[in-house]
This record gives sequence, C-alpha cells and structure tokens, in this order.
Amino acid sequence: VDYGDFPVQNLPYGVFSTVDGRRRAGVAIGDRILDLSRTDVPYREDFEQASLNAFMARGRHAWDEVRAYLIETAEGSDRTVAASEATLHLPFEVADYVDFYSSEQHATNGGRILRPDTEPLSANWKHLPVGYHGRAGTVVVSGTPIVRPSGQSRSRGEPPTYGPTARLDIEAEVGFVVGVPSRMGEPVNIDDFAEHVFGVVLVNDWSARDIQAWESQPLGPFLAKSFATSVSPWVVPLAALEHARVDPPSQDPVPLTYLRTDQRWGLDISIEIEWNGTVVSRPPYRQMYWTAAQQLAHMTVNGASLRTGDLYASGTVSGSERDQVGSLLELTWNGREPVTLASGETRGFLEDGDAVTIRATAPGANGSRIGFGAVAGVIQPAP
Amino acid sequence: VDYGDFPVQNLPYGVFSTVDGRRRAGVAIGDRILDLSRTDVPYREDFEQASLNAFMARGRHAWDEVRAYLIETAEGSDRTVAASEATLHLPFEVADYVDFYSSEQHATNGGRILRPDTEPLSANWKHLPVGYHGRAGTVVVSGTPIVRPSGQSRSRGEPPTYGPTARLDIEAEVGFVVGVPSRMGEPVNIDDFAEHVFGVVLVNDWSARDIQAWESQPLGPFLAKSFATSVSPWVVPLAALEHARVDPPSQDPVPLTYLRTDQRWGLDISIEIEWNGTVVSRPPYRQMYWTAAQQLAHMTVNGASLRTGDLYASGTVSGSERDQVGSLLELTWNGREPVTLASGETRGFLEDGDAVTIRATAPGANGSRIGFGAVAGVIQPAP
Repeated sequence: VDYGDFPVQNLPYGVFSTVDGRRRAGVAIGDRILDLSRTDVPYREDFEQASLNAFMARGRHAWDEVRAYLIETAEGSDRTVAASEATLHLPFEVADYVDFYSSEQHATNGGRILRPDTEPLSANWKHLPVGYHGRAGTVVVSGTPIVRPSGQSRSRGEPPTYGPTARLDIEAEVGFVVGVPSRMGEPVNIDDFAEHVFGVVLVNDWSARDIQAWESQPLGPFLAKSFATSVSPWVVPLAALEHARVDPPSQDPVPLTYLRTDQRWGLDISIEIEWNGTVVSRPPYRQMYWTAAQQLAHMTVNGASLRTGDLYASGTVSGSERDQVGSLLELTWNGREPVTLASGETRGFLEDGDAVTIRATAPGANGSRIGFGAVAGVIQPAP
Repeated sequence: VDYGDFPVQNLPYGVFSTVDGRRRAGVAIGDRILDLSRTDVPYREDFEQASLNAFMARGRHAWDEVRAYLIETAEGSDRTVAASEATLHLPFEVADYVDFYSSEQHATNGGRILRPDTEPLSANWKHLPVGYHGRAGTVVVSGTPIVRPSGQSRSRGEPPTYGPTARLDIEAEVGFVVGVPSRMGEPVNIDDFAEHVFGVVLVNDWSARDIQAWESQPLGPFLAKSFATSVSPWVVPLAALEHARVDPPSQDPVPLTYLRTDQRWGLDISIEIEWNGTVVSRPPYRQMYWTAAQQLAHMTVNGASLRTGDLYASGTVSGSERDQVGSLLELTWNGREPVTLASGETRGFLEDGDAVTIRATAPGANGSRIGFGAVAGVIQPAP
C-alpha cells in the first residue's frame, strides 16, 4: 500500500466534517481519516470538539500516550472515512500569530530588492531571530479563496494611490503550533521547546509587495500581510519529525546564552512550490539560520506568555539557489525576471485565477516519508 | 451625590467577581456595580458570562436597547454591590490587538529621538494611519503587576548584551473595542464605525525602549511591547461619548476617499498620567491626527476581517506641549532631562516599584463628566 503523505509513521491531526456537518478531530492515514471521536482513544472527549486546542493543551505526556495508542491501532481500524468525503477545517483556534524572518538567504534577497541603498541584513539579524506579530483572525485553512487585497501604494515621487495590489506574492513557510501555555513574566527555556510545541504545519503568508513597500516604515508590515495567511489542514506532531532532526547551520557570531542549546532542532523538511501546476521552487527548510527552538526562546525571553493555539512561522524559506526561494519576489526578482510556466504563461507576480500549492516532506521512521499534505489557494479578483 | 467617574450618563460595562469568585458582567454607577446577572435586563444570559464578547457581538440595536433599559433603571436599583468589594477582570476576550501611531506630535518626537538622522515623520505618515499588530495574549487588566522585561539591547558599536531593560516606559493611549465582526474580503466603510465599535478603554502600552531600538529593523517593534499591555476595566460605550465628539484636526493632504467621512469622530478626551502620585502629563486625545473611524477603515481596506473582541489602540497620545506627552521617552527626552516628582525623586524611565496610573474624562450629556476609571500598574523587578 502506498500511503502517500500519511504513512503510519506520520499520524497528523486535523479537524474534519462529513455530510452531517459535525466537526471533530481525526488522524490522516493514507487516503482515509481515522475518526477519533468514534474510537476508544485516551482523552476521547477532546477529539469530539471542533478544534485541537483542548488536546494540544494537555502536554507531552498525553500526546505521547495518544500517539502510542494510534501506532498500535490506527492501521486497519474500521472507524475511518474516506478523505475524499470529508471537508477539512482550520485544525486549531489561533491565539497569537507571529511571523519570523529566519532564512539568511531570504533576508538578504529581500534587503537587496526592497532596500537597495542599505546593507541587506540589518545589524541585529545574526544576533536574534527578527520577527513581528501578524493577524491571527485571518489565518485560514488551505483551500480558502484568497481575495486580491486593495490598499495604498506609491510609485516613487508620485502621490499614493488606492487600488488592488499589482504585486501579490506568496511566502512559503513552516509553522509551529503551541500546545502548552506558559506564565506571563516567565521566559521559556530553549530546552523546553518540545514540551510546549505540539506540531508543525505549512504556511503561506500571502503578501502584497506594493502595499508593503509604502506602509512599512517605521513600524513594519501591516495590511500587506493581514488580509490572509493560509495553513495546511494537518498538524504533523513533533514526534513524527524525530528522524528529520539535523544540525542547523553553524552560527557566527555565537548567539547569547538564552539562544544556545545542545539539542538539534534543524529539520530536514523539503518544500515544493507549485504555481498553476508547474513546480517553480524547492525551498530547503534545513538551511534556516534560526531554529524553531531559538524562535520560541526569543519570543518569550521578555516574559511574554504563550497560549494554546499560538502559531509562529519560520519566515520565508529560501535556500542558496535561485530555484530554492520561497517567494515570487525573489523568484522573479521583483517581477523583473518573469518565469515561464509549463502552460507557456509568463508571470512576475500572481494574477487572478492563479493557484499556488505548497507541499513538503521530511524523513520519517523506518525509511518512511512524512508528508505535510498541502497548503493551497486560488486568487480571486478584487471586488 | 457625586458619582465621580461613573454618573448615570456613563454606564460603562465590566466583568467582576465578589467573594464567591463567579465572574459576571456589571455596570459601574458611582462607587457601586450594578450586577446585570441579577436584573431583568434584555439579553441577561450574555451578562452571566465571564466576558462581554457575547453582548458585544449583538450589535448596535441590542446595545441601544440595553442602554435605554439601564438609563431607566440603573440608578436606585438594589441589585448592586460595592465596588470596593469586587474584583475587576479583563472585560473582554481580546481577539487581535492592533496599535496605531496616530499622534503627529508623538510620531514627530519619536522620530527626532529614535531616528535623529532621518525626517521625523515617515513619508507615508500623513497618507495613512501607520499601525502594526501587537500581542493579544498579554493584554491584561489594570492592576496586573508588570514584571520588568529582559532582552537584548546594544550600545552603539558594542556587541549586544542580555539583561533587564534600563528604559522601561509607558504609552498612554485610547483603545477601541470591536463588537460586530466583518467578513474576510469585505472592507468596512468608514461610516460604519459605530456599527462595529462597541466602546472605549484606556490603554497603557508598556514599552522597553532599549530593546525596541535594537530589534525594530526592519519589521517593527516586537519584544519591546509584547510583554504586557494594560487596559482599564470599564468599557465606556460609544453612546456615552456622543457629547465628546468634536472635529478632528484638519488633514493636509486630504486623505484618499476610503479615509474620508462627514461624521465627526474627534473625541474630546482629557488624559492624565500620574507617576508615583505626581501628575506629570495631561495628553489631549482631541489633537490626534487620525480618528478611530479612519483607523478602522484603514485596518480593513485590504479585506482583513474584524472579530468580536478586536482591540485597537490610538497610539501614544501626545499634545503639542511638553506637559501633554504620552510617553516618558518624550517627557524626559529619552532620559536626558529627568523629571522631579512630588516626593523629590528624579526619574528618567521607570524604576522597580514605580506606579503609573492613567485616567481620563470626557464631556457627557447634561453637563456631566464621563470618566474612564483608570489603568494602573506597578513595576516588579526582573526575576
């Protein structure tokens, strides 16, 4: 049997409904979904709910207990439904959403394109994982249509104008979902990463580059990002990625103590970006400069508390090669070097009707491949 | 009878508990709290909950209906408890938190102090209300102790270091609480402001200036703000501020169409900042360049949706005089011109044990004063 993205070594959690519309939690196995609400899984009541938050809040011991039960029983269970008959929903209620900027190559490319008069990497970049808060209320599940946003932009020297963005972009990212909260005033130690983070999703942080260029000084991106952020429907448990752990790139200068650990939290996740059916890029998450454990330690070093459902994204994943970048801004160098898709169409940025699908896989136990499913979206015209 | 901040023309909503610990909604009248859960108010079930969100979601018609009931019955009701016997809680569940930057004087002062080599106002400032997302999970009610945050900062030319902030500051702001949500992809018209916004609170956006200076390029403030944001416990209904409406300052250049309205949404709110018992500043909200209606229209012009419980703050309120500024950064000009408090203490920024209380009033019906109560906090040492 080919289980595709979802072999028994994966067992990602999601929220689904079938004809009766009742939302409940399930686990993907091959092309079927195990309906946890109809099993005798521990903490079954958590899985009768429309979000994973209650289960995510229980912590590592409960997560391990349920995973052990699933490894034992999931394959061959008759409590499944065909994935093709299910609708997938946002799997967790998003508390706060933070977006980092942790690919050295992306930050360098972005700096060169957007701020050509300055050093591409800001002075702080190698000392801390730069990040900012995004809009939690517009995090949506894969498949949600993306309406082209309108807003202000400005051609150099002209007065600003209002209209639909002409530079609609993607950002391919990996997102980390917090299960166990922390107390305000108490930083989370970097070595407690796996006690707090429940699992991993793919993120497409849709971006309007013309709006961004005009609005971002001095307080950072706002409306250029807040209109929509898509996530994949299956939360891959951190435990499924044990075999994907690799050494992160070496860091020079050595970061401050609170950002150091002996735990390896580089992850060998291979991403693929498909634009109207053509694979245009293959970003390698393992090249990310800052790890998710460092991001978590940094995000809380000031005493900011975590809540169940917090989502933080890696930042655009861009590798060192031109066909490894995670944004169209970089792929087409701000539209100046359009790409040609398999259909013969040429593109700088996204046009109405365009479809983008981001997929990823990582090594799993016993030579398996852990798939993340996909985060997909189609662009609808501005109203 | 002197009803202080809470005459019958005000009737602000909050969430309180008494000895039994049960949280429910109430309305402040003088030094008492009307326990709505024990009245026959319309939508009484909403007021038996631990947050105002359910009631806030009902919309203008229900808000008016309940306010009419309260104006009729609140004074002289025996369903009250002494405010002194109640604990006040965060009155609503915060969905997304956005912070604007809409005082021309504050933005000018901030630019001069923090970015002395550039024009104080960024090129976009008079074309759109600059803003960014903050951390919703660390919005806390007045009285919550504020632990001095630690983090990275850097003296010019030195490597960055880790430690407690040495430049802990306040920002006195006015916050707007969204009741009625909107749909993703559909901008909210500026003239629908009062259909969506339920009421107003005071906000203290605690800030660590040394952390901010080091981290904010290129994506804006992050940990310098995310450790705590305090709000006053009483949500003053927009309807109570009808007599406080004034013309906002004239805007030059005239903003784009979506930011224009014939409705007057300047508000004559007089703020007062008390530092260890000494009033050090009196910021006038009526001088704010961008109104809350313009901020709402801007925040959604890209199709970003609103949720019940969204909180957006005005940005630091600073008037044109030195004793009208809303931050200590401006009051002491980045610590270079310390202030002397009534006790004889001199201060640049906040020291451990310092207490800050922000209060405000506005004109109400029949010559009354609408008080906002207070947002207060005491600084605790870093752990």
